[in-house]
Amino acid sequence: MVLGPGEWSSADLAGRVAVVIDVLRATTTVTTALANGAAAVIPFADLEECRAHREKEPDVLLGGEREGVRPPGYDLGNSPLEYTAERVFGRRIAYTTTNGTRALAACRGAEEVLLGALVNRRAIAERLASGGRDATLVCAGKNGRPNLEDTFCAGAIIDMLDRLSADGVDLSDRARIALAVFRGQDAGSVLARCEHGRTLAGLGFGEDVDHCGRVDVVGAVGVLENGEIHAAH
Amino acid sequence: MVLGPGEWSSADLAGRVAVVIDVLRATTTVTTALANGAAAVIPFADLEECRAHREKEPDVLLGGEREGVRPPGYDLGNSPLEYTAERVFGRRIAYTTTNGTRALAACRGAEEVLLGALVNRRAIAERLASGGRDATLVCAGKNGRPNLEDTFCAGAIIDMLDRLSADGVDLSDRARIALAVFRGQDAGSVLARCEHGRTLAGLGFGEDVDHCGRVDVVGAVGVLENGEIHAAH
Repeated sequence: MVLGPGEWSSADLAGRVAVVIDVLRATTTVTTALANGAAAVIPFADLEECRAHREKEPDVLLGGEREGVRPPGYDLGNSPLEYTAERVFGRRIAYTTTNGTRALAACRGAEEVLLGALVNRRAIAERLASGGRDATLVCAGKNGRPNLEDTFCAGAIIDMLDRLSADGVDLSDRARIALAVFRGQDAGSVLARCEHGRTLAGLGFGEDVDHCGRVDVVGAVGVLENGEIHAAH
Repeated sequence: MVLGPGEWSSADLAGRVAVVIDVLRATTTVTTALANGAAAVIPFADLEECRAHREKEPDVLLGGEREGVRPPGYDLGNSPLEYTAERVFGRRIAYTTTNGTRALAACRGAEEVLLGALVNRRAIAERLASGGRDATLVCAGKNGRPNLEDTFCAGAIIDMLDRLSADGVDLSDRARIALAVFRGQDAGSVLARCEHGRTLAGLGFGEDVDHCGRVDVVGAVGVLENGEIHAAH
């Protein structure tokens, strides 16, 4: 379990399942897009590389954010509510965000990379419980630091995983920190109080924050493979 | 609030009070030594530099640990229970530990550097509340990662500070994480379950773990100034 970007470099992911968590909003948005039938999401850490991808693939949609808002020339911002079936069904999306896509890039060494959020918390826990491999939850955090909502989501996944596993789960200190954050409070109040939730509400994205705090409402699980995210089967 | 070593480099401490926290055991041990009348503790990140300090100052005691145990030729290990008034009253101690002294070194940019632990939790909170300056709690963590006991202690300090401050305190996401960890559980069970607590108990230091989990039992506060830790007045 990795609470924030400061620990990414020390995380050894070889042979493990990595679950990248960026509740506000990248992993919620990608999960929502896949649930609504997007064919693939192609993550880019760099804004210009993402934009340039359309030269290779003219039909691709461009989605993502910088400073929370849609970059110039992009088709979609980073609001999960934009990624409706009408917009994304059957489409491929080149996608970039500030923290989420960097966290994905940091997980290159893992055997499997999943995208976790509160909306698909149960689906993630079930996949981990049935897979039987060790998992590392990788919180995207913000600007090099752990944040409240990703830590809460990691705790929510661990709590469910513990309930689904006959033998319980081995808990690292980081996992115990996340569990304590989850068990003491509810998703709605965490997302309303956390730093990034307040920033997003201030930018007019209050509905996004509400949506990102809905727990277990989506069955889709994104899997990153060969540089593309597809819905797991 | 800095949960772990991965964030040290991004912490801007200029003009702030930094409280270094290494509950098991560095900041507990130094606080105990000062409470028992040690004249000064001189922290060293490097084992050999620490040892070499005796050439300059023949009367100095050597204290600290590597892998939890007393280094060859040292007078004292890293158990707070060794730092009795009989051993340390009036003495100067050259001191080195794995994580704690590195965290102290990382706080060079702060206006004031204090050593926080559970044993002096209330004294730390009172000093912060009366000082009126912004504080950053710097958890030493372990091997580049946040740990449970330092996060719990940070939460304990924040909780007390919040109670002592008429206007309450502004909470970052990291502070909210620490508060959640503190409010859900008690010191004894946290120290018994955390990774390093179990390691220390396995090395035969179970009594140390119990001692480090005693809350508000000491009034001494160590202040790092010009490379030496003295008891604050």
